[in-house]
Amino acid sequence: MRIGIISTGDELLRGEIADTNAAWMASELCSRGHLVARMSVVGDDPERLEAELASTFVACDLVLVGGGLGPTDDDLTARAAACALGVQLARSPEAEVQVRAAFERLGREMNPLNLKQADLPAGCSVLDNPVGTAPGFAVDTPTGGRALFFPGVPFELTRMFGAHVDRELPADPAARHTAVLKCFGTGESDIQAALTAIAESDPGVRFAFRASFPEIRVTIAAPDPAELERALARARQVLGRAVYATTDIGLPETLGRALTAAGATVAVAESCTGGLIGHSLTEVPGSSAYFRGGVIAYDNEVKISALGVDRSTIDAHGAVSEEVASAMATGARRALGADLALATSGIAGPDGGTADKPVGLVYVAVAHPDGVACKRHVFKGYSRSRVKRASAWWAMRTALDITAERK
Amino acid sequence: MRIGIISTGDELLRGEIADTNAAWMASELCSRGHLVARMSVVGDDPERLEAELASTFVACDLVLVGGGLGPTDDDLTARAAACALGVQLARSPEAEVQVRAAFERLGREMNPLNLKQADLPAGCSVLDNPVGTAPGFAVDTPTGGRALFFPGVPFELTRMFGAHVDRELPADPAARHTAVLKCFGTGESDIQAALTAIAESDPGVRFAFRASFPEIRVTIAAPDPAELERALARARQVLGRAVYATTDIGLPETLGRALTAAGATVAVAESCTGGLIGHSLTEVPGSSAYFRGGVIAYDNEVKISALGVDRSTIDAHGAVSEEVASAMATGARRALGADLALATSGIAGPDGGTADKPVGLVYVAVAHPDGVACKRHVFKGYSRSRVKRASAWWAMRTALDITAERK
Repeated sequence: MRIGIISTGDELLRGEIADTNAAWMASELCSRGHLVARMSVVGDDPERLEAELASTFVACDLVLVGGGLGPTDDDLTARAAACALGVQLARSPEAEVQVRAAFERLGREMNPLNLKQADLPAGCSVLDNPVGTAPGFAVDTPTGGRALFFPGVPFELTRMFGAHVDRELPADPAARHTAVLKCFGTGESDIQAALTAIAESDPGVRFAFRASFPEIRVTIAAPDPAELERALARARQVLGRAVYATTDIGLPETLGRALTAAGATVAVAESCTGGLIGHSLTEVPGSSAYFRGGVIAYDNEVKISALGVDRSTIDAHGAVSEEVASAMATGARRALGADLALATSGIAGPDGGTADKPVGLVYVAVAHPDGVACKRHVFKGYSRSRVKRASAWWAMRTALDITAERK
Repeated sequence: MRIGIISTGDELLRGEIADTNAAWMASELCSRGHLVARMSVVGDDPERLEAELASTFVACDLVLVGGGLGPTDDDLTARAAACALGVQLARSPEAEVQVRAAFERLGREMNPLNLKQADLPAGCSVLDNPVGTAPGFAVDTPTGGRALFFPGVPFELTRMFGAHVDRELPADPAARHTAVLKCFGTGESDIQAALTAIAESDPGVRFAFRASFPEIRVTIAAPDPAELERALARARQVLGRAVYATTDIGLPETLGRALTAAGATVAVAESCTGGLIGHSLTEVPGSSAYFRGGVIAYDNEVKISALGVDRSTIDAHGAVSEEVASAMATGARRALGADLALATSGIAGPDGGTADKPVGLVYVAVAHPDGVACKRHVFKGYSRSRVKRASAWWAMRTALDITAERK
């Protein structure tokens, strides 16, 4: 099956954003056993879009299009699709109901311009958008293939993709049995190298990777359950502690499940992460059952007043030190009455580093009923944002290990 | 000038990485006044690569190709280019000198296989690669255009790009004049509706939009500075308070600059946002100069113990109330010794809503030296993640307004 992906939008041709939608769709297809044949990007230009659609209809059996379904003047995809298909653009009653319902659900007044989102190629099927206002649509192509059109907002596209695309894909015997390993703490190329040997010795097994910093998702596909089990066991062996979950969930949710299972509560004391650990934990629905809260101790005075860190400890070792990170964690555990407390203190950069304490140096501490575990990390060459993320993830990973050990 | 970008590599078609090379090149070209006409991605497949090159030679005057110049079997670009051009692939003495010199410079032993990197289409010009081992090359296309081929390693491509591409671009075309408005608090379609009248009455003016929830970036382009000024003034008038900045910066950084200008410090007291405001503020380099820290008061006991909220206030009004959000803000301002304190209390969902206090109800309060401002929001139909983001952004927006008023 030849699959083509088209992304639309002048913002892509201006290079304002990279085409992450296409990469995401390709990765999803890869994990289902399909390699995309080609991807293309066209701007908000009706003739070019129509020509790209027409040529991709010829070259591919399944065409996936992202973007240009919104209400504004530069949203041209439905019209271009109608032209490429040689049909009229017509108001779809089904799509109109969906647009009106979406505004009702979102509690927003609907500007009449938004009904443009219900003007679709005649004869298409409407694809429900559960999280936004623009429905998608699907058509038969003139060459006997299928084309599916999604909104370009990643949050909407990713929510709609699976339900609609799976129906179009042929059953793939080689990918009938799949497993997922969620990894953290090892680079993608190291993981790839580690798994190459397995793939080479067993040509029926397929690995796919997707990095969403700092997490890496590995998908394993095999033709039968026994082969999958073998590959999975070997993969877990070479990946070791990098694997934190065997289902497709993030580390914050994994920690949340472990805390729930252990009946434990957690608190945070964040310096260089600035609130990111708390934010990540509270992205998980139901986290209020185990997350008590915490202190963002950015300023040293806050470390002293809110967490009870001794001024002399800061004076003696500096705020970025094992001593202070450990005192923050134990202080937060006590002050917030939690079973575990996660603390970070480091230099996120880009400025503020010294020869002794370079940018990227972070102490991550986790206080628990029997003491405190503290580790020194140096995230060399990382951006400020990545230093924060890596620190937050190491804190959660450490807490996960401690929770598992204590069970 | 029609410009096309082709990126090669199976890793792109597997979705392991997004095509950041294309975005980077497009952005460089855009800053030089050129909008790319199309981008495409093809895999490590000789026929498909040759076909893509041939069709892009026809469609574009300048073709930029990234990837496939390395020494391994899946590096196929030079051979495919020779086929598309109808010329022989031949060892280039000039390229061979460069490959040997590159290995010498890098202090690495050269495997003879690496000389494959010097096998280029006959008649091409060799493009020097100052940082890697694979030279690039440039050719005249059969349709009278030019095509430039770069290695796919981003570090090498970005180093080689400017020197070689600038020579191919026509002397500065009629320069477009652009301005940016960063907006928050109004939907994209409402902004579009507001700007339609301006665009219609002045056909030389073009608006473009980019949404990165909950921020929207509006770009205005006009043929001359006077027209741009007029369009900008009218746009600011119709968008009103939705505009928070006239340069391309986010709201957290805008607030940071306003605080710095006012010599003011800020703290947070986050319930439903769970640390997101602190995280967002500390993504900005240098934020330690004005951000003191805060309390993530997820649990009611933390609101009482760390922020001094009266238990009776919580009992009388509930944690999600104007009274509690205001008390959290004033408590954080006092406890953290900051000039301003931002507080949130709400129901992020998906569960926990009632008829009286539905999911999406959030109170946002900002305490300042003269009192506290609190506003009730209902983010209906938003996901948990979006309720948090919208709440955090409203808190920062309110703090920005208060900082501006107090100046």
